[in-house]
Amino acid sequence: MANTLTGVNFTGFTTSAESDQTFQAFSPALNSFLEDKFNLATETELEYVLQLANKAFGTYRNLPAVKKAEFLDAIAEEIMALGDTLIERCTAETALPAARITGERGRTCGQLKMFAQLLRDGWWVDARIDTAQPQRQPLPKSDIRRMLIPFGPIAVFGASNFPLAFSTAGGDTASALAAGCPVVVKAHSSHPGTNELVSSAIIKAAKRTGMPEGVFSSVYLSHADVMKLVQHPVIKAVGFTGSRDVGMRLFNAAVARPEPIPVYAEMSAVNPVILLEGALQTKGEKIAKDLTGSITLGVGQFCTNPGLVLTIENDVSKKFLQLLVNEIASSTPATMLNRNICKAYDEGVKSRQSKAQVLAKASKEANKEKYEAQPVVHTVNAANFLAGKELSEEIFGPASLVVMCKDETELLSVLQSLEGQLTATVHATAADEKTVGPVVDIITQKAGRVIYGGYPTGVEVCHSMQHGGPFPSTTDGRSTSVGTAAIYRFVRPVTFQDFPDHLLPEPLRNDNPLNILRLVDGEWANKKIGS
Amino acid sequence: MANTLTGVNFTGFTTSAESDQTFQAFSPALNSFLEDKFNLATETELEYVLQLANKAFGTYRNLPAVKKAEFLDAIAEEIMALGDTLIERCTAETALPAARITGERGRTCGQLKMFAQLLRDGWWVDARIDTAQPQRQPLPKSDIRRMLIPFGPIAVFGASNFPLAFSTAGGDTASALAAGCPVVVKAHSSHPGTNELVSSAIIKAAKRTGMPEGVFSSVYLSHADVMKLVQHPVIKAVGFTGSRDVGMRLFNAAVARPEPIPVYAEMSAVNPVILLEGALQTKGEKIAKDLTGSITLGVGQFCTNPGLVLTIENDVSKKFLQLLVNEIASSTPATMLNRNICKAYDEGVKSRQSKAQVLAKASKEANKEKYEAQPVVHTVNAANFLAGKELSEEIFGPASLVVMCKDETELLSVLQSLEGQLTATVHATAADEKTVGPVVDIITQKAGRVIYGGYPTGVEVCHSMQHGGPFPSTTDGRSTSVGTAAIYRFVRPVTFQDFPDHLLPEPLRNDNPLNILRLVDGEWANKKIGS
Repeated sequence: MANTLTGVNFTGFTTSAESDQTFQAFSPALNSFLEDKFNLATETELEYVLQLANKAFGTYRNLPAVKKAEFLDAIAEEIMALGDTLIERCTAETALPAARITGERGRTCGQLKMFAQLLRDGWWVDARIDTAQPQRQPLPKSDIRRMLIPFGPIAVFGASNFPLAFSTAGGDTASALAAGCPVVVKAHSSHPGTNELVSSAIIKAAKRTGMPEGVFSSVYLSHADVMKLVQHPVIKAVGFTGSRDVGMRLFNAAVARPEPIPVYAEMSAVNPVILLEGALQTKGEKIAKDLTGSITLGVGQFCTNPGLVLTIENDVSKKFLQLLVNEIASSTPATMLNRNICKAYDEGVKSRQSKAQVLAKASKEANKEKYEAQPVVHTVNAANFLAGKELSEEIFGPASLVVMCKDETELLSVLQSLEGQLTATVHATAADEKTVGPVVDIITQKAGRVIYGGYPTGVEVCHSMQHGGPFPSTTDGRSTSVGTAAIYRFVRPVTFQDFPDHLLPEPLRNDNPLNILRLVDGEWANKKIGS
Repeated sequence: MANTLTGVNFTGFTTSAESDQTFQAFSPALNSFLEDKFNLATETELEYVLQLANKAFGTYRNLPAVKKAEFLDAIAEEIMALGDTLIERCTAETALPAARITGERGRTCGQLKMFAQLLRDGWWVDARIDTAQPQRQPLPKSDIRRMLIPFGPIAVFGASNFPLAFSTAGGDTASALAAGCPVVVKAHSSHPGTNELVSSAIIKAAKRTGMPEGVFSSVYLSHADVMKLVQHPVIKAVGFTGSRDVGMRLFNAAVARPEPIPVYAEMSAVNPVILLEGALQTKGEKIAKDLTGSITLGVGQFCTNPGLVLTIENDVSKKFLQLLVNEIASSTPATMLNRNICKAYDEGVKSRQSKAQVLAKASKEANKEKYEAQPVVHTVNAANFLAGKELSEEIFGPASLVVMCKDETELLSVLQSLEGQLTATVHATAADEKTVGPVVDIITQKAGRVIYGGYPTGVEVCHSMQHGGPFPSTTDGRSTSVGTAAIYRFVRPVTFQDFPDHLLPEPLRNDNPLNILRLVDGEWANKKIGS
């Protein structure tokens, strides 16, 4: 398999490898570099793909929605056609098991097809029409029609923890392409071979469905050149999933441009889980088991990992903690995505020792030769938690922190103190009715998704998903990076005033050729105008 | 009338004037200060209103939509109840004629009622429901429901050029209150008396309809304290209309906060008007007259003022320019909004002399004792226009610049060179069919609103209006400050997963109590769930 990889950058419909600067993927499980070499893009190559993307935008934005849908479907087909080659390479680069990668491939292709369907459905453009009233006094009313149109080329950053679903052909790429925006992917250096395979699939699909060259490119970039990508005038928005540090550097660069652009960075969260007494009383054992499953799923390497557990100190919660200790003890260490993540995990856990007490650890120690992480749960009382900011910060990996509150008032204070979160979860029963109201009111203000009686890991890809919360969980809590609504990150509204019908985009024409729901004179209706 | 003014800050349901720092409004038409003194808010007063706003948010966000609608309707009633007192004071402070202010009052009250109706209609929350599939393999699907919820307290900056419609109770305030966000207004120093009258009307309305104290406050602030307002952790977004300089200062302060927040600043635009040959041939006289009307309307003090006119040099356009010269010559100077705006206008016009030629001027000179502006139109060829950036910058007032292009190619180059605009307009007939397509394609990329055969001034307040374009016309081209869609500036989506029905917000409940259109399992429908 390895010898099929070339290490090139995907510069439109050609490939390019001008630089003599190369790097190799590292297999954390094997503790060794994989043999294939990948070429960093030169400044010239980067400039070339950006100009191609800009040129492609002129054509791509005006293609009918059904043509773009064909492209997205074709990408899914070409990814499937990569077969086991993709699964094997991705597994080698990420240490994620084949079953997980196979599932993630399903999700990735499902997302592409979902956006294709959204394009065929067509209503997402939010068409609004207010018809003319030439006789209106004191002034006639114009014919005004509004819909969403694409921004322009988008820079997408592959994420290490979802090498398929949030990387080269992941949700950011799929939603940007669906919106009508060309994409330039900055491939993640942890899985360059996976990127190469997926990029080749996208380019095949683009050629096969008659897309303009430059609609998609992918490049390997040095740290310095990453900023050149974000600062380039051709780029109109950025999609990113990763650390708070890198996310904020991208955000700061983007808002300091002569023309500031949006950065949709999904960065960090501790995803509080609030366990109320009634729930612990009736389902304590199941919660201990499932919560442990959520903490350790994927070696804890999910942005929705439950890194904070809040409960009120009493006999019921004490009993629950013992159940949790047992579950965590029987969990197992596993290899992390890459060396940096493993190092950061160990440092984060070490630093927490000084501020909180270890409640539970996997009984088996981590094999550091394999860059494993050992699951661990700390505990602290609410007063100490509130005393500093550090304990509310994320440790990326299978770690969590149980905060013991004296009473409901203290629980609500802790919730109020939290920064913005991707998710917040409450477990309750009818016996907790008095407490659950105020808890839900606060967590709804703090998070993008609130969960009742479940766990934050596992993000359903659907119309109603909101994966994105107030800062610092993301840089833009108005946006989601999962689900059909992710398309809204890359579009803006434009109004057409008194336009002749034939010059209007299809969604706004009188005869409603796309047969979509539109807001016509204040009423949502699937109808033609006039006649 | 003047003795009814107190000069106080509106700090929730009380008023406050702790500072000994006062200022007076200046009447540019009278060239003198008006007698009433207004107190700048102290830091303590500012902190007080911000804490009140934060507290009010806890109550206000959970009020039923119909209660908020009553509040908005009541504000409109209380503004009308101010009667001529408001019209007279506003006229004195702004030099805008009574007829204009009366019209603007109508628009202001109309906007408030429009948002009240939107709240009663209820669909704007974009409710999306994906029902559970407990039997799904390999994993059961949760019940997922999503809707828009308010951000929190909003800082609104009154604009000088719309002392009612974009000020204390203007579009920003109305849309923020409709969204469920308390508002803290930074009153514009050019019309403090107008602000006092309108603030008192809002407070009356708030008390009468049982709103929580702090849902609205208004303060007079020094320049330094303006930044304290924007940087305060309680504030979650900013609405602003004004100069690019101030807008960018607010934007830069907002993105540098520990928690960056959105700034919706509507800043500057030259609103290009493209005149194609067919249109000039058949309607040259009417276009010359109407374009002059649009350039000089409201002494040119509209963000949609047509500051740039593009045409192709030929006999038809030469003839048109002569018609335009005559129309501009017969236009009349008039008093501007305030001394700074008048000074900036004169400087802008003077600076343009060195780079472009005067094409036409009002034959009557401006009376500088009355801070009048003299309408003026310059002309330049496309090559010189493209040579520097300065000619593409806005001169706020009754000035415009005609750019003569050699041919269609040069016209398209000039359009491509432009920064983001609020509007762009094209005049064409069937004879221009070949040119109009590429022109529309480019201007749609550059502007928030594109107009066919009309003029950019006059912004219809309706569902389909988009008043906001790519940077630098605004800091966020995804947003509009006019029309019902302005509400989306102050909300973010939140998803509820597996929630018991009684803990869900009304728009998401099974029985659809608000009777609204929702996206249920991928189909837009006004229906109940289950049963």
